[in-house]
Amino acid sequence: MGEKIPHWLDKQAFLNPEKTALETPEGSAYTFMELQEKSRQMAHYLIRMGVEEGDHIAFLSGNDIHFPVFIHAVSYIGAVVVLLNTRLEAPEISYQLQDADVSRLFVQSSFTDTALRAVENTEVEVVEFENVPPVSSPEGALKKEIDFDAPYTMMYTSGTTGKPKAVVHTYGNHWYSAAASALNLGLTPDDKWLICLPLFHVGGFSVLIKSMVYGMSVYLMDKFDENRFHEAVMNKRVTHASVVTVMLQRLLKRTGSSGYPDTFRCMLLGGGPVPAVLLKDCSAKGIPVFQTYGMTETSSQIATLSPASAFDKAGSAGKALSLADLWIDSAAPGEIGEIIVQGPMVSKGYYNRPPRQEAYIHTGDLGYQDADGFLYVVDRVKDMIISGGENVYPAEIESVLSEIPGIKEAGVTGRPDDRWGEVPVAFLVAEDQTLTDKAVHQYVEERMAKYKRPAAIYWVRELPRNASNKLLRRELLSLTGGENS
Amino acid sequence: MGEKIPHWLDKQAFLNPEKTALETPEGSAYTFMELQEKSRQMAHYLIRMGVEEGDHIAFLSGNDIHFPVFIHAVSYIGAVVVLLNTRLEAPEISYQLQDADVSRLFVQSSFTDTALRAVENTEVEVVEFENVPPVSSPEGALKKEIDFDAPYTMMYTSGTTGKPKAVVHTYGNHWYSAAASALNLGLTPDDKWLICLPLFHVGGFSVLIKSMVYGMSVYLMDKFDENRFHEAVMNKRVTHASVVTVMLQRLLKRTGSSGYPDTFRCMLLGGGPVPAVLLKDCSAKGIPVFQTYGMTETSSQIATLSPASAFDKAGSAGKALSLADLWIDSAAPGEIGEIIVQGPMVSKGYYNRPPRQEAYIHTGDLGYQDADGFLYVVDRVKDMIISGGENVYPAEIESVLSEIPGIKEAGVTGRPDDRWGEVPVAFLVAEDQTLTDKAVHQYVEERMAKYKRPAAIYWVRELPRNASNKLLRRELLSLTGGENS
Repeated sequence: MGEKIPHWLDKQAFLNPEKTALETPEGSAYTFMELQEKSRQMAHYLIRMGVEEGDHIAFLSGNDIHFPVFIHAVSYIGAVVVLLNTRLEAPEISYQLQDADVSRLFVQSSFTDTALRAVENTEVEVVEFENVPPVSSPEGALKKEIDFDAPYTMMYTSGTTGKPKAVVHTYGNHWYSAAASALNLGLTPDDKWLICLPLFHVGGFSVLIKSMVYGMSVYLMDKFDENRFHEAVMNKRVTHASVVTVMLQRLLKRTGSSGYPDTFRCMLLGGGPVPAVLLKDCSAKGIPVFQTYGMTETSSQIATLSPASAFDKAGSAGKALSLADLWIDSAAPGEIGEIIVQGPMVSKGYYNRPPRQEAYIHTGDLGYQDADGFLYVVDRVKDMIISGGENVYPAEIESVLSEIPGIKEAGVTGRPDDRWGEVPVAFLVAEDQTLTDKAVHQYVEERMAKYKRPAAIYWVRELPRNASNKLLRRELLSLTGGENS
Repeated sequence: MGEKIPHWLDKQAFLNPEKTALETPEGSAYTFMELQEKSRQMAHYLIRMGVEEGDHIAFLSGNDIHFPVFIHAVSYIGAVVVLLNTRLEAPEISYQLQDADVSRLFVQSSFTDTALRAVENTEVEVVEFENVPPVSSPEGALKKEIDFDAPYTMMYTSGTTGKPKAVVHTYGNHWYSAAASALNLGLTPDDKWLICLPLFHVGGFSVLIKSMVYGMSVYLMDKFDENRFHEAVMNKRVTHASVVTVMLQRLLKRTGSSGYPDTFRCMLLGGGPVPAVLLKDCSAKGIPVFQTYGMTETSSQIATLSPASAFDKAGSAGKALSLADLWIDSAAPGEIGEIIVQGPMVSKGYYNRPPRQEAYIHTGDLGYQDADGFLYVVDRVKDMIISGGENVYPAEIESVLSEIPGIKEAGVTGRPDDRWGEVPVAFLVAEDQTLTDKAVHQYVEERMAKYKRPAAIYWVRELPRNASNKLLRRELLSLTGGENS
């Protein structure tokens, strides 16, 4: 039996009623008590719309101040919320809605058109959640407790199979992730965490939970902008932020010769390898960078490297956090093998997939630990591309490309890119020699989010494969002597 | 199913190998890695002595540096440790050993005589645990995980029944207590918590667990001493300490006109009501006092008042910590009733007693909450006396007094005392008029810890009782017109 604790928003509204829970650069702000009131109001509205405990509902919204209100409302009802990536195209959304058995899709009005296209020929109802009418009489009883064992969120991720699958997070997963982070980074009453990552990803979402678990203020940006970020650090007493490499590079340019004030104590940096020169520049400007390793399945960071070790252990993602266990599936200590993780923040499994039998998960990433136990991630088993902080799965893109009439085979890999870190590029074997780049791009545009679309198409005679006919994605780039579009 | 996490001492030895885990005023110190090594060594020794997972073993020791080593060794084996109060007399220990089904009693050598008397006519084995011989070859496998659901400690407490009963704490109870405290008080890498409370009580013990959960340094004193405490705060960078009122009064005198440095950020004050003048003096000297409410059953503090509210809410014990729920069993909001508490730090029950059916516990204390939700403890349903930080239960003392041949009835209550806050005093109805004070004192001395022994004996003709013949302990002091010894 999992633990139950008092509802975390009720608790913070009780402990810190007048403290700022949320603020935005545009000047909106809610205290914990106001956030509680808005969220309970929204919960009553959802109940009126027919949402019940255990229902699967989807949510399609940018980083609006309504986002936290909505997700807390869900927690008062005990429904499960599927967080949709706003960059997805209608067919991608449609797949996720069906796979997750969603009954209702709540959308920010700017996404209504996409949503309506996504639910065509389904029974999913689309509801705009903004401008909730006042609910004069409370509808139904709201939950008073958080049940650590209950499912709360689903976030889609892809693997080697090509089809995205939903990672199910319980309240306990999110709570322990927040607790482990505080035990690592420390905690003070003045902490204020800036969010510029999408809230529909675990990296952004987890900060909303930290706010509940710590009673911490959140500075919520609708999207990353280096000027507004800089302003928030310099003048708004922001103490923490979560970023990906491409953002940090832009921030560093923005700081000019000056550094950050001492009040800023943690730049949590996720999403892949970090150029050494970037760390050096940050160090020179007094920007404390904590490199992390984590994934949707681990409810955000599971290993973190402190700034103190950034140079001694250059390239490392640090050590597993206090509640987590991490080891390498290798023949001998120090050797490279698959990274295995375990802990109460690790998702119990995927929706609609066979349950995992083990307590631990195979991350699909390759790495090793040095003699001091520091983790080095050397490669992704999945061949995952990280583009501007978004995970891009070659198999998913290949699956769409292979559907195009006239395409015989498709291979996708990442190409280094100054702006995004990496971008996907496609290698196609044509059956129909009249097929054009334009036709391919057009097909893809209707079906895939922009960040997944190949930045370049290479027509080749055959794809590199090993003896068992497995595609060797690492060798694709060596074919770029071929025709480049 | 409860959560499992990596063994907390192994984890801290991995994360912070060179950090000081423990230091004493005498100059002993262990890093986390040394503490791990000593504790694992002790675990192998215990296994060699025959201790197995699930065994109940007892531990009788002062605040020695071996104490943490021993309790961590126990956690590597999965045995359950009964922590004995070193002030108990042999018959009291004997009762606890039998009630708790203890097989072995490990003692500090200064308590060997008492221990041997306590185990007379039992099969309990007494083992001196100091000077553990080096175990050249490891014996048996040590646990790699902490299982939140597994029982870890038993601590005896009394209630209205007169017979002490063992509060069973799981690892989860202790872990959540530590987590809730950090979420309330904050956490920094420089935290160093001074222990001057006995480690066999939950107030001292809980700091050893905090050290494991936070990777925090502990400054361990064998007993309270205001000079050494003062020295530690002024020159050893101690940041936190847990004390009871009588200690704080002595500390305040010791500080003279100077205050404490800014590095000292939390004086956690438990054990009953606090004189307003004491708070005022502390405030004037910049000593940040956090008043708390808690008990063995809640694994230490469950509500805490921050210094910021100390005067606005004078007399309050604050609000329930973030993981805990607390309410008053009363007819209307604001009215006095029994205090009810619930949360993952609350013990699931007593050993050898029927399991509790509810998730919450009745504390036996009376209190109310003001309009802002602050708790005020107004009285103890149990008539508990708090003497120098020790809980003293009238019913337990009455039970011993009533055994004396020639005593017809006994009533015990607390009398205010300048030094100890309160002391127990006894009201006796004699059958045998020749019975002397001396005979009573002698009987008691052989059977009860010093702090429980009546400071005064009053011979009375009858005890105040209500219509249902229930003893009215509150009215006893009004009888002191009788003969006073």
